[in-house]
Amino acid sequence: MMRTRPLKVALLGCGVVGSEVARIMTTHADDLAARIGAPVELAGVAVRRPSKVREGIDPALITTDATALVKRGDIDVVIEVIGGIEPARTLITTAFEHGASVVSANKALLAEDGATLYAAAEQHGRDLYFEAAVAGAIPLIRPLRESLAGDKVNRVLGIVNGTTNFILDKMDSSGAGYSEALDEATALGYAEADPTADVEGFDAAAKAAILAGIAFHTRVRLDDVYREGLTEVTAADMASARRMGCTVKLLAICERAADGQSVTARVHPAMIPLSHPLASVREAYNAVFVEAEAAGQLMFYGPGAGGSPTASAVLGDLVAVCRNKLAEATGPGESAYTQLPVSPMGDVVTRYHISLDVADKPGVLAQVATVFAEHGVSIDTVRQQGKDGEASLVVVTHRAPDAALSGTVEALRKLDTVRGVASIMRVEGE
Amino acid sequence: MMRTRPLKVALLGCGVVGSEVARIMTTHADDLAARIGAPVELAGVAVRRPSKVREGIDPALITTDATALVKRGDIDVVIEVIGGIEPARTLITTAFEHGASVVSANKALLAEDGATLYAAAEQHGRDLYFEAAVAGAIPLIRPLRESLAGDKVNRVLGIVNGTTNFILDKMDSSGAGYSEALDEATALGYAEADPTADVEGFDAAAKAAILAGIAFHTRVRLDDVYREGLTEVTAADMASARRMGCTVKLLAICERAADGQSVTARVHPAMIPLSHPLASVREAYNAVFVEAEAAGQLMFYGPGAGGSPTASAVLGDLVAVCRNKLAEATGPGESAYTQLPVSPMGDVVTRYHISLDVADKPGVLAQVATVFAEHGVSIDTVRQQGKDGEASLVVVTHRAPDAALSGTVEALRKLDTVRGVASIMRVEGE
Repeated sequence: MMRTRPLKVALLGCGVVGSEVARIMTTHADDLAARIGAPVELAGVAVRRPSKVREGIDPALITTDATALVKRGDIDVVIEVIGGIEPARTLITTAFEHGASVVSANKALLAEDGATLYAAAEQHGRDLYFEAAVAGAIPLIRPLRESLAGDKVNRVLGIVNGTTNFILDKMDSSGAGYSEALDEATALGYAEADPTADVEGFDAAAKAAILAGIAFHTRVRLDDVYREGLTEVTAADMASARRMGCTVKLLAICERAADGQSVTARVHPAMIPLSHPLASVREAYNAVFVEAEAAGQLMFYGPGAGGSPTASAVLGDLVAVCRNKLAEATGPGESAYTQLPVSPMGDVVTRYHISLDVADKPGVLAQVATVFAEHGVSIDTVRQQGKDGEASLVVVTHRAPDAALSGTVEALRKLDTVRGVASIMRVEGE
Repeated sequence: MMRTRPLKVALLGCGVVGSEVARIMTTHADDLAARIGAPVELAGVAVRRPSKVREGIDPALITTDATALVKRGDIDVVIEVIGGIEPARTLITTAFEHGASVVSANKALLAEDGATLYAAAEQHGRDLYFEAAVAGAIPLIRPLRESLAGDKVNRVLGIVNGTTNFILDKMDSSGAGYSEALDEATALGYAEADPTADVEGFDAAAKAAILAGIAFHTRVRLDDVYREGLTEVTAADMASARRMGCTVKLLAICERAADGQSVTARVHPAMIPLSHPLASVREAYNAVFVEAEAAGQLMFYGPGAGGSPTASAVLGDLVAVCRNKLAEATGPGESAYTQLPVSPMGDVVTRYHISLDVADKPGVLAQVATVFAEHGVSIDTVRQQGKDGEASLVVVTHRAPDAALSGTVEALRKLDTVRGVASIMRVEGE
């Protein structure tokens, strides 16, 4: 039975994602109505530049006063695709206060201050959905919050930034260096003019915070996430990874500690074996690998960004939130009951791949090996290579706390026989 | 705020999946309670053999009278992991009549008569959840029903049977024939003593029916699904696939017709390019590739069977259904509003890879090509190979209706110069 009075939707932001949301709401109105059980109506669109021509959107709906729009009182659902911390946060909490549920794609805000949003949603008995905030169209938040709600997630390992995956894939397939690959990504529209948020790992770190919080039922904020970008990954690192049967990916890694009493979240480039399902994720695609106690190893793959894919995620949430509204119910809220603390990077147990430039003389390996031993780090393999009085040593360690590994590197730098540490990269996914 | 009165759960069936569900309900009781907002209690377990020792389950809960259990009236959720059509169907509808919601892993029943179950659930205002019915632990039903509820799915392409994927992977990696690979699958416990349901594609066809119905918001039953097993796939087919840069997978394929006015569902072995994400799905893993209008190409990957993975899916549903119960709401019910008809296999547009044994004399290729032309089937490539007066022709066609392709093959068989049709296989995923 179809309700005839439409549910009213306010759209905050009408850029690449917002305009696509508006377009699909119009072109697929009948399908949305059938799936929700009531028609949905675009009741207002808040934008910064009202003069811009927006095809398919009634100009009467356009406003620059987002605050007045969310305060109207007749809005059932607010879709927030503005991004950034403010005014998005205030608009969302105001929307809850005025009776609306919220669908957001705002990863930065959720990672920075998700708790405030959740609390406001709960206080006013409204929904906060944000599938689009992580990995675009890939269903990930819902599977983690709902499908795996009866399981215990131990690890999330994800390629959650398309720009950096495009760059690394290009470096891997063509032997290009970082700058060259970045230029190509920029030329093809995969990287923004200022690529900092992507290449320094800020974007991935926000997603890691969101994923870790949901996966482990605790609170993880952006500041809790260790972060290294990929600007220092070289063609030599790529070649070295290949020699080990690996490739390099910028990974967001969320882990439950072995004792179960804490969690960690981090973003950094890492070598992963070519046999790992994430290794074959090409171009700007995203994929997230989840290890759960009962389910085993799952992977979710798809386009991680772009107007249409992100709109797909937003609209899936819109349908769910509208259904909840009609049923006078709400979906899952914040689940942070475990209150597991987030441990610092030094506590993470991982492996290092270290390239050293060393003096080509006897005894160097013994000196280097002693430094590892003194720091309690066990060596898996060493490869020595000499050329013209120079030599290089490539050491791959066994698993050890990151603090011990970085302490080892610091001590190695002080050795007279070590001329330089050419690169350090973690090895994951084994 | 936690409700203290527990929700009562009745478990029907206590085999590989049921015992794992019971175990996790006990060992993870606190987590489940925190996530649901109320404790859950195992209130009864219906089994066929009550004398069997069942570790960790209070013997007082065991009963052989499943009907009496679902009729008790105090049961909030019935978990059905018996399988088969009856008594499962009657037990589920009886459960709804007596106020319980149902979580089921029963693919056969859902594919055969899902409409009856949905109708009973709706009539009594209860939930019917069945994530575990398709592809074990892989979240698939929920993403299709909810995450993609705002999108338009055009195609679902899946490896949904682990046994057959193990066999084909073995044939591909070792060059083994079908029987040899089946023997290994049996020895390792991947194939049952009677592997018919798996190798003849019945299991995959049931899953295809369920997926097609949900993806296209219409009703698709097992009888609507075209089905071919993999028993006739040979080592030569595998080698031929490799030469084309392909591998062979048993695929469940659900498609919306180009004109959008009908759908098709089928299960058969097919060649897919090695570059396709499904090509690298190894061993007994499952993966489902979804193409949606806005989301683009998504893939869901994981273990498709086994006690623990299936239990994970069941428990995720249990949490959702319990939350709904507490909120006095229900989740999404049947969505079959499009009422799109299911077209027969002859209407499917696909490509064929055909191996012919032909006489090694001039003019054969011309004769063969004429037959293709007469049936309106355009040839993509032909490879001729001669040896000792015998010759083989391998023809790969362009896309054409399956009826035209099979008509072509029938006519080829009648040619004097064609000694036999060595193999026919569809080519997909391009």
